[in-house]
Amino acid sequence: MNFRIIAYIVGWVCNFQAAFMILPLLTAGIYREKDFSAFLLAMLVCLVVGVPLTRKKPKNKVFYIKDGCVAVALSWLALCIFGAIPFVVSGYIPHPIDALFETVSGFTTTGSSILSDVEVLPHCILIWRSFTHWIGGMGVLVFLLSLLPLAGGYHMNLMKAESPGPSVSKLVPKVQSTAKILYTIYFGMTLIQLALLLIGRVPLFDSLCITFGTAGTGGFGIVNDSLGSYSTYCQVVTTIFMILFGVNFSAYYLILTKKFRQAFKYEEVRYYFGIIAVAIVIIALNTAHLFRNLLTAFQQAAFQVGSIITTTGFSSTDFNQWPALSKTVLVLLMFVGACAGSTGGGIKVSRILILCKAAKKEFQLYLHPNAVKKIKMDDKVITHDILRSTNIYISLYLMILAASVLLIAIDNFDLITNFMAVTATLNNVGPGFEIVGPMGNFSSFSYLSKCVLIFDMLAGRLEIFPLLLLFFKGTWKKF
Amino acid sequence: MNFRIIAYIVGWVCNFQAAFMILPLLTAGIYREKDFSAFLLAMLVCLVVGVPLTRKKPKNKVFYIKDGCVAVALSWLALCIFGAIPFVVSGYIPHPIDALFETVSGFTTTGSSILSDVEVLPHCILIWRSFTHWIGGMGVLVFLLSLLPLAGGYHMNLMKAESPGPSVSKLVPKVQSTAKILYTIYFGMTLIQLALLLIGRVPLFDSLCITFGTAGTGGFGIVNDSLGSYSTYCQVVTTIFMILFGVNFSAYYLILTKKFRQAFKYEEVRYYFGIIAVAIVIIALNTAHLFRNLLTAFQQAAFQVGSIITTTGFSSTDFNQWPALSKTVLVLLMFVGACAGSTGGGIKVSRILILCKAAKKEFQLYLHPNAVKKIKMDDKVITHDILRSTNIYISLYLMILAASVLLIAIDNFDLITNFMAVTATLNNVGPGFEIVGPMGNFSSFSYLSKCVLIFDMLAGRLEIFPLLLLFFKGTWKKF
Repeated sequence: MNFRIIAYIVGWVCNFQAAFMILPLLTAGIYREKDFSAFLLAMLVCLVVGVPLTRKKPKNKVFYIKDGCVAVALSWLALCIFGAIPFVVSGYIPHPIDALFETVSGFTTTGSSILSDVEVLPHCILIWRSFTHWIGGMGVLVFLLSLLPLAGGYHMNLMKAESPGPSVSKLVPKVQSTAKILYTIYFGMTLIQLALLLIGRVPLFDSLCITFGTAGTGGFGIVNDSLGSYSTYCQVVTTIFMILFGVNFSAYYLILTKKFRQAFKYEEVRYYFGIIAVAIVIIALNTAHLFRNLLTAFQQAAFQVGSIITTTGFSSTDFNQWPALSKTVLVLLMFVGACAGSTGGGIKVSRILILCKAAKKEFQLYLHPNAVKKIKMDDKVITHDILRSTNIYISLYLMILAASVLLIAIDNFDLITNFMAVTATLNNVGPGFEIVGPMGNFSSFSYLSKCVLIFDMLAGRLEIFPLLLLFFKGTWKKF
Repeated sequence: MNFRIIAYIVGWVCNFQAAFMILPLLTAGIYREKDFSAFLLAMLVCLVVGVPLTRKKPKNKVFYIKDGCVAVALSWLALCIFGAIPFVVSGYIPHPIDALFETVSGFTTTGSSILSDVEVLPHCILIWRSFTHWIGGMGVLVFLLSLLPLAGGYHMNLMKAESPGPSVSKLVPKVQSTAKILYTIYFGMTLIQLALLLIGRVPLFDSLCITFGTAGTGGFGIVNDSLGSYSTYCQVVTTIFMILFGVNFSAYYLILTKKFRQAFKYEEVRYYFGIIAVAIVIIALNTAHLFRNLLTAFQQAAFQVGSIITTTGFSSTDFNQWPALSKTVLVLLMFVGACAGSTGGGIKVSRILILCKAAKKEFQLYLHPNAVKKIKMDDKVITHDILRSTNIYISLYLMILAASVLLIAIDNFDLITNFMAVTATLNNVGPGFEIVGPMGNFSSFSYLSKCVLIFDMLAGRLEIFPLLLLFFKGTWKKF
């Protein structure tokens, strides 16, 4: 284990965190809010930790995938712990575990909240909640990679550990350039959505927060009914952008480099859009009687499908009241999740595609026992390593799901609430059904349950391995 | 595809089915019930189909695993369809789909019922329901193998297709002898339980039905409160035997051949007992306040844990009223299921062990990327084939679960009922929670949903592959 480099990376994450807090600080200044000091204090803490750790560049450049995982996991922990300081200090979320829950929910782009009334929060706190989504969406280490002049071969191991999906593809040979491209696309799309919302006369502050939540596929709202009271225009724009932010960013790179044919042949993206279309039709027809006309039903279905499959978690209506079929579709979409290499969570469409292809191959083996067939996606062979790690991901995912539901059950809420609370956090969705439905929140859970859900949110965002590695004794051996 | 042999095997299954019906026929005779004729008619139909198919032994002995799967799937379909005739003809379950549901539930040892009142049924119908559990438990093709002088190498492919678990181990080199040994143990244990129940003054008829249900891990009751109104002695005996019938039968063979050390070192069996012990303690403590003393709580917890993990599905109390933690434990046990090579259903303890070991190995790969490690169970290496088919089994299992819950949701019952209905049938458990709880039944579902659940029960018992193979076009090619 290369403790020196890991400390160096975590240190930089703390420094960046201090820089990120300039936004809420400015907001507090503009709106003359007294919670200014809470952010100043948090920035100070970040710098006190960060600056000493980053003073000297480490010499030893040996950096394995294990080190990458630990660096990512510790960075995220630091990010969440220091990010929670303003909530506690400002007094809006006095209990540290509640504050940590809210911050983890922010950075992991989950959007589950322990707050029952967000409308009492000052602007600086609201924008910080939403901004954590934007930071966590594309990943803070990817951000770091795009800016920091880190020499040595450890870029890839960091990126592998933080990026969602069964495999990480570099867009260009250099990892640093890949990170830069990703953030440029991310930034560009964020700006476009912001502009479109402003054109639709959504106030600047609201536009910013909604855009951060959409881009990171997070889902924190700044009013209590999420996006329910915004105009249809605002909802439609958000629907489109939620879905766009759930697309594998490699597709956008292909479009930018004018490789249109390749971009539109992306199997994962095509299935992603296919699933969305089917889900919208089912839900719209199933809920048509609840809306004034079929068009509204389609618009609302599209919003909710886009919000749930990308694991954003905004809501425009109380889908907890929908018929069982629509609710079941939404639950399944929570598990499916968005594309790999997007800002969305869940199992990811590509993993499910890989599993389906592997199953199909197995049947062909029954029919032709001696045939040797490879599984392919986008004309590339799925290596045995990817297949194995996908399978193990699914196993671990199910085990964490089962263990979490069991632990949460101690609180003795109904089974749907328990199951949905875990589903909504592990997949980084945000709202579930019943007590944790779109009009509910997570405040009534015990602190034990909140800790379990905090773990789930992190496990979901970091895709399990980096987080679980922290609990292995062997991880902490020097070499 | 060797259609000739497949027809020959299905034919024999029909003949055996006719023989099986002698038991309800005798019962009808003893109790002078008029439904005598329903069974006579069903027997006649079985023989009309079976006798012509088995007149000539097929010459072509080429028989692949694919043929084995198709033979097993078709045999089970024949078994269930012809087994449903008495229900329809007697008029006790007039609708063919309802009757098929009840019969499939019987043969697959599920124990889910569409009947709201079983106490109005005549003895011959009751014993036929319970007897189907016993036939289906160890498997009708294993039975066939143990008796029929089939020459050629296709025994193993039949046994592989019907026996539950990730891999099938022959106890002795000859498959036919293995089948004989299995049925001898099965028969012997059945007799012991029957004797113990009779000693406890449980009436003969009740003892027979309860024993059939226990041995096959089925769970059809002959009174409306399942085993709730029977003596504690009867419940305790049943608890012990449910758990014993969930043990891998290879362990019993080792004990019979005095290889005690090997028998007690069986990893799967040890974990099986470990899980049972932990589950009993959790539930007993969690439900202690519901019973008059802790001992009763332990007895009831043991009964329910034994019933659910072995996927028997008897109930001694309405566990739908238990606290969320206990209910969650039961749900998880439904998925875990019993040991491979037992009469129980579910995913099986050994599969879960394999997945855990594979996950552990993956983490070791993170720590030591170049280490080559094999996964072992009982000191034997888990081959790549077993691991792959286990993974694919889990994937398909989840896909069927998801698709079934979605289709059932059209009926618009609550999500718990839908999820539990599928869980209870796909794992061959029987009762679930809410509408399909231990005091409820499956009658209120639509026929579409019932068909889905029939599919799930068969998929669960035959472990998916044989059943799904029927739907591949390639399966039906001549060669």
